[in-house]
Amino acid sequence: MMKLIDTFESVRQASRKLALLDPERINEILKAVAEAAVAHTEEILAANAEDLARMDPADPKYDRLKLTAERLAGIAADTRHVAGLPSPLDATLEERTLPNGLHLRKVSVPFGVIGVIYEARPNVSFDVFSLCFKSGSACLLKGGSDAHCSNRAIVKVIHGVLDAYGVDRRVVELLPPDREATAELLEAVGYVDLLIPRGGKNLIRYVRSNARIPVIETGAGVCHTYFDASADLAKGTAIVNNAKTRRVSVCNALDCLLVHASRLADLPALCAPLQKSNVVIYADEAARRALDGHYPAALLQPATAESYGTEFLDYKMAVKTVATLEEAVAHILANGSKHSECIVAEDTAAARYFSRTVDAACVYTNAPTSFTDGAQFGLGAEIGISTQKLHARGPMALREITTYKWLIEGNGQVRS
Amino acid sequence: MMKLIDTFESVRQASRKLALLDPERINEILKAVAEAAVAHTEEILAANAEDLARMDPADPKYDRLKLTAERLAGIAADTRHVAGLPSPLDATLEERTLPNGLHLRKVSVPFGVIGVIYEARPNVSFDVFSLCFKSGSACLLKGGSDAHCSNRAIVKVIHGVLDAYGVDRRVVELLPPDREATAELLEAVGYVDLLIPRGGKNLIRYVRSNARIPVIETGAGVCHTYFDASADLAKGTAIVNNAKTRRVSVCNALDCLLVHASRLADLPALCAPLQKSNVVIYADEAARRALDGHYPAALLQPATAESYGTEFLDYKMAVKTVATLEEAVAHILANGSKHSECIVAEDTAAARYFSRTVDAACVYTNAPTSFTDGAQFGLGAEIGISTQKLHARGPMALREITTYKWLIEGNGQVRS
Repeated sequence: MMKLIDTFESVRQASRKLALLDPERINEILKAVAEAAVAHTEEILAANAEDLARMDPADPKYDRLKLTAERLAGIAADTRHVAGLPSPLDATLEERTLPNGLHLRKVSVPFGVIGVIYEARPNVSFDVFSLCFKSGSACLLKGGSDAHCSNRAIVKVIHGVLDAYGVDRRVVELLPPDREATAELLEAVGYVDLLIPRGGKNLIRYVRSNARIPVIETGAGVCHTYFDASADLAKGTAIVNNAKTRRVSVCNALDCLLVHASRLADLPALCAPLQKSNVVIYADEAARRALDGHYPAALLQPATAESYGTEFLDYKMAVKTVATLEEAVAHILANGSKHSECIVAEDTAAARYFSRTVDAACVYTNAPTSFTDGAQFGLGAEIGISTQKLHARGPMALREITTYKWLIEGNGQVRS
Repeated sequence: MMKLIDTFESVRQASRKLALLDPERINEILKAVAEAAVAHTEEILAANAEDLARMDPADPKYDRLKLTAERLAGIAADTRHVAGLPSPLDATLEERTLPNGLHLRKVSVPFGVIGVIYEARPNVSFDVFSLCFKSGSACLLKGGSDAHCSNRAIVKVIHGVLDAYGVDRRVVELLPPDREATAELLEAVGYVDLLIPRGGKNLIRYVRSNARIPVIETGAGVCHTYFDASADLAKGTAIVNNAKTRRVSVCNALDCLLVHASRLADLPALCAPLQKSNVVIYADEAARRALDGHYPAALLQPATAESYGTEFLDYKMAVKTVATLEEAVAHILANGSKHSECIVAEDTAAARYFSRTVDAACVYTNAPTSFTDGAQFGLGAEIGISTQKLHARGPMALREITTYKWLIEGNGQVRS
């Protein structure tokens, strides 16, 4: 028995009315949501304070949960930015007239209902709503229980705007913050067209094992940088430092440096800037010998089996020595998460081989994986970074949360 | 414990080598497979005879299972046709240079390993191999047990060609024809990138409930044609007859005619050609009264709840009277399978509303749903017709069985 079936059904109904809403009207409503987010700062912060009161300020999630007037202003600016982007809908993706006169047009259309499961970051509620609404889909928000008061206040503000504009408020619904709601969402065949889980490994594994609706996995990034025999040392040094230390808590951060055996002498220089950030290096035997005496002993550890294939999300990095380019690729295929991978090389044949054989959403040559991001790629916004291959790979923006249909116009032609 | 893990692993390894194979070489090998199919006619037909001996010739599956020298020549021609199509790989889908000089290219790449579950049609083994091989993916074939001898003979012929060309023969593997193999395939996370089940409702439901790998559902088509208040009778008559009787056993065949109440007087003319094919009509009260005396009484039945939302795959059709265009759309949303839907209308506003609000892969105006087919759409070939929204909708050809990756080239740029 599904307790949420009525909610699912009414969101589905609301999504169908969205298909008839004009893009200009959508933008107008998004701008009104941005204004309302600021106008209701007080209520939202009061609700957020209730959530914060239940969390230990030492918890690393505390800062992500916390909203401030300044952060709400930033959220409003993001929402206005989405309003200003071109609509991803009704774009002609392909068009042709067949010899029999039939006219075919492949056109982008909304998914319908998109479910998003996320953790204690209330700003995601605004983000998901604005991206889904802009692309013509209704959304079911399944936020973390830690942020439930905040999420409730945010959805209340959005509902107020939708009511004022005469749009069915059920185009966005917040689900109860419990496991039963997640379980029902995973089984909502026919009601939810797409599910995007955003969170840790355990959530992803649970969703993958239990979902009966289409899912796009996002997030986990075990990212490598391979320093080739032909690599330029200055570029490599900047790339490694940026990929590792720019922001360690994000999925595009560097986890494992692969170094060609012929370049071990350059390893101290390559890793030197990491000392400033107190990056702990887990190095294999050869790399450790090369770094010994050049990198602070307290920060230099022997690599273990756990050092490879691990997403550190911390000031930690594994280093592995490889004898060949092929060995580097094989290590990445065995240990990567199909997110972002990089080669530093001046030899274009090596870079081509790497680009062609590494199976990942984003493959870099001489640039750090830190660039994997919808805004950086010029996509305007981002609902997540897909690490699977179906439908969308890498940064998912507005276009990636649309699907398409074929419109066929005839004049009574029949098929022989 | 997975018994097939070694098979999955070796197919995965073989798929990676495929990424380096030149498109010209791929076409050459496909042509050699076409030749070999004909050259080994005798062995393939002998194996097929073993399968046929186990099946009752009265079984409707018997004809689909049966191969002949002529059919093998047709299969060879199809394989040569695929060889002649442009490669779907390495196409630039998007390209841009960012202000910081980073060059981004979104490029089409193979999925990797594609699993296909299908029933007793041995020609599908050739089709799936040629489409997957052409698009750079390895394939795992899970054919029906009824066709296992035929499939084994076919894969042996393909393996012979691959061996002769020095390509790892594991780019195609036939799985055992048992349920255990299906169960393991559904759980092959990390080994199989995409699974396409082709078959009946029960198979689809089983796959949806149990798959832990990405799936594209194909096939089931509950197709409607709506005859609007503004419809042209001559066009409608040709469209209804073609959509219903061209081939009743295929997924794009018409299942339910929706007729606007103001046009009931035209219903006898609209249905007249169906008599020749002895189409049984399940009509609601109003439609039955309109047809009474005009359509053979023996072929006219009252509609029941089961008449709607049913894929007949037979000379049977439901008819429902609707008071408005909106009611027609609501009926389709409630009963369709998101495959192919049609409106017959001269009123362009009605056609636009229908096209915009009907949620299906292919939406027709004044043309029959019989056209839903990869070859008809000019896509060159078809591995199935997707009825879901993730990744691909409608006819799936070569392009639809590729994915993409982003290739980013820099010169040592870092992100601020």
